[in-house]
Amino acid sequence: MTDDAAGGSIGIGLVGYAGVARAHLQAILRLPTIFSVRRRPVLVALAGRSETTATAVARKYGAPTVYTEWRRLVDDPHVEMLINAAPNDLHAEVCMAAAARGIHVLCEKPLARSAQEAAQMREAVASAAVVHMTGYNYRFVPAVQLARRILGEGRLGRIYHFRARFCDESMIDPQIPYGWRHSRRQAGSGSIGDLAAHAVDMARYLVGEIESVSAATRIFVDRRPQPDGGEGTVDVEDAVEAVLEFTNGALGTVEASTFCAGRKNLFTFEINGADGSLAFNLERLNELQVSLRGDDVEGFRTILATDARHPYGGLWWPPGHILGWEHAFVHQLHRFLTAVADNGTVAPEGATFEDGYRCAVVCDLLEQAAREGRRVTVLDP
Amino acid sequence: MTDDAAGGSIGIGLVGYAGVARAHLQAILRLPTIFSVRRRPVLVALAGRSETTATAVARKYGAPTVYTEWRRLVDDPHVEMLINAAPNDLHAEVCMAAAARGIHVLCEKPLARSAQEAAQMREAVASAAVVHMTGYNYRFVPAVQLARRILGEGRLGRIYHFRARFCDESMIDPQIPYGWRHSRRQAGSGSIGDLAAHAVDMARYLVGEIESVSAATRIFVDRRPQPDGGEGTVDVEDAVEAVLEFTNGALGTVEASTFCAGRKNLFTFEINGADGSLAFNLERLNELQVSLRGDDVEGFRTILATDARHPYGGLWWPPGHILGWEHAFVHQLHRFLTAVADNGTVAPEGATFEDGYRCAVVCDLLEQAAREGRRVTVLDP
Amino acid sequence: MTDDAAGGSIGIGLVGYAGVARAHLQAILRLPTIFSVRRRPVLVALAGRSETTATAVARKYGAPTVYTEWRRLVDDPHVEMLINAAPNDLHAEVCMAAAARGIHVLCEKPLARSAQEAAQMREAVASAAVVHMTGYNYRFVPAVQLARRILGEGRLGRIYHFRARFCDESMIDPQIPYGWRHSRRQAGSGSIGDLAAHAVDMARYLVGEIESVSAATRIFVDRRPQPDGGEGTVDVEDAVEAVLEFTNGALGTVEASTFCAGRKNLFTFEINGADGSLAFNLERLNELQVSLRGDDVEGFRTILATDARHPYGGLWWPPGHILGWEHAFVHQLHRFLTAVADNGTVAPEGATFEDGYRCAVVCDLLEQAAREGRRVTVLDP
Amino acid sequence: MTDDAAGGSIGIGLVGYAGVARAHLQAILRLPTIFSVRRRPVLVALAGRSETTATAVARKYGAPTVYTEWRRLVDDPHVEMLINAAPNDLHAEVCMAAAARGIHVLCEKPLARSAQEAAQMREAVASAAVVHMTGYNYRFVPAVQLARRILGEGRLGRIYHFRARFCDESMIDPQIPYGWRHSRRQAGSGSIGDLAAHAVDMARYLVGEIESVSAATRIFVDRRPQPDGGEGTVDVEDAVEAVLEFTNGALGTVEASTFCAGRKNLFTFEINGADGSLAFNLERLNELQVSLRGDDVEGFRTILATDARHPYGGLWWPPGHILGWEHAFVHQLHRFLTAVADNGTVAPEGATFEDGYRCAVVCDLLEQAAREGRRVTVLDP
Repeated sequence: MTDDAAGGSIGIGLVGYAGVARAHLQAILRLPTIFSVRRRPVLVALAGRSETTATAVARKYGAPTVYTEWRRLVDDPHVEMLINAAPNDLHAEVCMAAAARGIHVLCEKPLARSAQEAAQMREAVASAAVVHMTGYNYRFVPAVQLARRILGEGRLGRIYHFRARFCDESMIDPQIPYGWRHSRRQAGSGSIGDLAAHAVDMARYLVGEIESVSAATRIFVDRRPQPDGGEGTVDVEDAVEAVLEFTNGALGTVEASTFCAGRKNLFTFEINGADGSLAFNLERLNELQVSLRGDDVEGFRTILATDARHPYGGLWWPPGHILGWEHAFVHQLHRFLTAVADNGTVAPEGATFEDGYRCAVVCDLLEQAAREGRRVTVLDP
Repeated sequence: MTDDAAGGSIGIGLVGYAGVARAHLQAILRLPTIFSVRRRPVLVALAGRSETTATAVARKYGAPTVYTEWRRLVDDPHVEMLINAAPNDLHAEVCMAAAARGIHVLCEKPLARSAQEAAQMREAVASAAVVHMTGYNYRFVPAVQLARRILGEGRLGRIYHFRARFCDESMIDPQIPYGWRHSRRQAGSGSIGDLAAHAVDMARYLVGEIESVSAATRIFVDRRPQPDGGEGTVDVEDAVEAVLEFTNGALGTVEASTFCAGRKNLFTFEINGADGSLAFNLERLNELQVSLRGDDVEGFRTILATDARHPYGGLWWPPGHILGWEHAFVHQLHRFLTAVADNGTVAPEGATFEDGYRCAVVCDLLEQAAREGRRVTVLDP
Repeated sequence: MTDDAAGGSIGIGLVGYAGVARAHLQAILRLPTIFSVRRRPVLVALAGRSETTATAVARKYGAPTVYTEWRRLVDDPHVEMLINAAPNDLHAEVCMAAAARGIHVLCEKPLARSAQEAAQMREAVASAAVVHMTGYNYRFVPAVQLARRILGEGRLGRIYHFRARFCDESMIDPQIPYGWRHSRRQAGSGSIGDLAAHAVDMARYLVGEIESVSAATRIFVDRRPQPDGGEGTVDVEDAVEAVLEFTNGALGTVEASTFCAGRKNLFTFEINGADGSLAFNLERLNELQVSLRGDDVEGFRTILATDARHPYGGLWWPPGHILGWEHAFVHQLHRFLTAVADNGTVAPEGATFEDGYRCAVVCDLLEQAAREGRRVTVLDP
Repeated sequence: MTDDAAGGSIGIGLVGYAGVARAHLQAILRLPTIFSVRRRPVLVALAGRSETTATAVARKYGAPTVYTEWRRLVDDPHVEMLINAAPNDLHAEVCMAAAARGIHVLCEKPLARSAQEAAQMREAVASAAVVHMTGYNYRFVPAVQLARRILGEGRLGRIYHFRARFCDESMIDPQIPYGWRHSRRQAGSGSIGDLAAHAVDMARYLVGEIESVSAATRIFVDRRPQPDGGEGTVDVEDAVEAVLEFTNGALGTVEASTFCAGRKNLFTFEINGADGSLAFNLERLNELQVSLRGDDVEGFRTILATDARHPYGGLWWPPGHILGWEHAFVHQLHRFLTAVADNGTVAPEGATFEDGYRCAVVCDLLEQAAREGRRVTVLDP
């Protein structure tokens, strides 16, 4: 009898089927072939607005049930774990309803449209005592976990700087139609919640809490064609540039923009410490650059983080056989399922709702700092 | 009724479960979620020496049947397509038995231990009129297909040079135990069949037929510990360096070695033509370097081949969300299944057994040229 | 009779002999061998505190006269042009004294310790009607001039972003002794004037005027050993992080730090426009990265700016034979001498004292913004 | 009294004024400002075919005498050292005449048009007991000397591979006119002597003696327009690809071609040993890539070889301030002058005529191996 057999399965309900939802679907599909798990994840229901599309996706991934109303999915007794990949304005309501039913929740990032909304979600999962995770998936890239290991070993010494930028060109064409991501009501923010939030979470994951921020934002294209004619008014920022000050004294920047011609998915960060530095680039996500002072053959080395000794090493392929963007979702789901099996938490590798909340606080402050033209400080939670 | 439903399924039997077999298993699992297919691939049987391991793998991937003798798999009436991921000495026998039963065959590379053996296989699949493919999977990397598209459009002009090297450090440690890859009887050759064969196939795929070769080989570590005590004698080359001359006048090199410290999976090639050049590196397989003469802002550009307009673009993730090493196996399997559905051939994108044979001819000549210390010429097939 | 003979020579007096002064010395030495000039630059006098060192340097470079007091150099009638490579607290006094005597002045950057001081210098050279230049030498790197050419042709379209960082590890060791660069009285500022000023000048040169800044600064090591015992108190910033807003609507960052382990002289910038992007890295100063939208083979291309068609192309070596850091000083000096010959200005390629002043204004505001924790705006000059 | 004064000067005569001669001129000019030398190099005479050009060049560099016949330069009693930057067919005659007069000789590479010719030159300088050097200037790139230091310390262990390629696009345009480099009589060979010779010398410098070679060559454009009308027949190879076998058992390649679109001056090499690897690229000549096994943070590190502890470190500029292509000529000349001062040899850093001869032997064999289609062996000298 295998581990799988011992633990049976865990039923997953997924809200959403497009975009990042597909990465979660792939993760559910693949996880049992890569990891030994006590309870095999099984997609038991899928909820989405279009029944036709939802049905087609469900068939591809073997989901037996499709809902066009998320409430019915949350009410489905087979759903023991929820993955919320809906637009931001559905994060709070769906997650809190699920938690109230004792369903474990993995919610896509940003956790909510505002810190206030995130705080409610945090309370809800705490009260319900369910396992909770915010989908800051880049924590689960092996090279990022290697960065954290190196930092955890103190090899960079006191940290002086953290710099991150997340740049793409996804909105550079003014003819890209108006969508929910352009609406403050639905999305909460623009490139702050979509892109900068990843950088803020990474800053917290690798360096520590942020004390204050200064920022500026821009809307470069403020009206976009509606898919069905007419124009929509963009009321969220296309770009943000910010200075971060950390409680540990480090100084840094966070930048995000969807108007960077030629940049496709360029999430980079660099950390400088007294004893060394490291750098990462999501477009080459298998690589970590590390420079250590005192090394007698000094220089930034490019570590291809695919060896057996690296995080998640040996699970997939031989050294040098690179992983893709979506592999981190498999690792992330495994962390979640492990927490469920242990009646524990996804911390510290995974972002909890507490992490999602703290990140939302900083994201809110980025907007406030930009609007008010001043440095604003993170108050104690 | 979906396409899937219309065509039913196609039963796949897989010989082998370790190493590259895992990439095929993942491809079978994922293909139906990515591509629309007329007949859904279903893993119906798995054959492997260890029943315990085979059974565990079969359970993970949902294979209903396990065999410890490949002949029984070939006799299984549910097997309509064979994937042969066994060691090289099982390529010919298994494939020919399968073909004789009308089973379509996808055989791992190198197709055989020698050109002579490959020729028999080529005859077998031709006689049986089954779909056949040699697993030169790197043809199915999007950046490689983009390279072929650019070449096909004539944008590099007359080709002057092709250079390829495939370097890793997989055998550099003398304590790595003796295995079938160190045995001429079982493997046919060493780094020639294991690594250089990929480069030779790529040369043929992108530039054309090879006319002659000059070469040298080396065995750096000639005795290795046997897993069960004692020592084995390595009688295949650890490294090969070769000069290639093409029928179209181009000049090039092929290099392969498993003794390149720090190189993990470095399969690189560069093609120089009268009007431009291109370069590829498997460790950064989402990127293609292209330089075109006459471009008024000249220079090697790094194309991140993940846009919708690129080969396989839009199938997986948004631009800049990179693919991993194993994605090419999904594309390859799709090409195979399309050929089955069309009663056609996997050419030109896929390597047929004819391609596998021609590659084997060149591989044999590399060994001969090295042994005889002279330029040897490829005779007409 | 050559051009040289026609125009005779121009006598140069140099204040300073260490550090960047050496780059100027090399430029004077080499310029006549590379450029055709109407008046050959001749080093006629050198001023420095240590007579021994100054004499040794003067002998190496053929300077007939050495002074230990700069005033005597300014009074030397053979001095027609001054290069001021003294510490920052000697910039204003020496330059103004020289200008008052009708001597053309090339002053190292930052022009002054404050905008107020820079304003006085700007007035002085304007009154004296001498040729004036601030030594923002990186303007004269061929790849930078290529960037400006591409921008000038409008090929990037409307500019959305400018990002620059200047990072090294020059102060990371706490045992590096206290020097004039650590003193606000002598240096005016720390990494702002030393490093960020280059980035600010580059922003103005390539993108346009800056409207406002937000910033934070840090002193990481506030006491350092004095060379002669005791400790000095560092009262200038080790690092600055800032957000820039440009009058044309672009948004950006400027970062500078001397505490970036492993970074040697990493001055990088990236500019994103509606139609393309470009990027530069001083550690690979012969290269410019350019991506243009609409290019049918899209991607960042690496232009090795050494071809004949590139700025300063063909003057030095064949294509691909790279230039070093100091070559820009030769180009800069040539621009200065051309302005002298033309009774003109070093603009627009060269930074005038007006440019030096405007840069100083922004640098002052970086400090003010950091101190006051708010966005501060550049007033009209 | 300085060192300079103590030793006086050494008179240099230069044959040639274009191309690489300019790098020598710059080296003579700059050396005394960078190095302390016992005898200051002074350019006392210049010989070239065109009196007008030679005179102009001489004026720029302060040479008092110009000759249009090299014999007169060799007869000039002020000439104590000869730099021979003439076309290849003038190497032997000029150098031997100079040596016969006791003049020290630095001859550009390739030393001669053939090994036979090189052997005569080797005998001549030995008999005359003059200091002799072949201008394999890339030995004097700091990153290359760092490579040699690392190899000399045994840090790479037993060497398995050496691979070098020298690629540019200098002849890719068929309209590039016929010149001496296209003539076997004048040049001896094409890309072999022009480019591959650098790689062969580097192989010998870093790895050791070559035992045998296999090769192929190509002429891609066999007729070119004469500058004065008509066409010239190219009878030297445009490209060579070769396999090298070293006496120490290492296996490698040498490649050279002037038909590599987009490659400007791409001289790269990689060395793989049992304990590590290193790689170099002349287009980024300040950098050395090094990977060492057993390093607990493994990966190829990029060493920017500009620190004080690196070869020639601290002589020029601060860390990260990169050197250009021509700096190696200054280092090379310094090595030569040191040998003169010591009545010694330029070995081991510099290539002697013995080295030039041995390199010529290999170059000859490359041509022979290609012509005869077989592996040819280097006989003992």
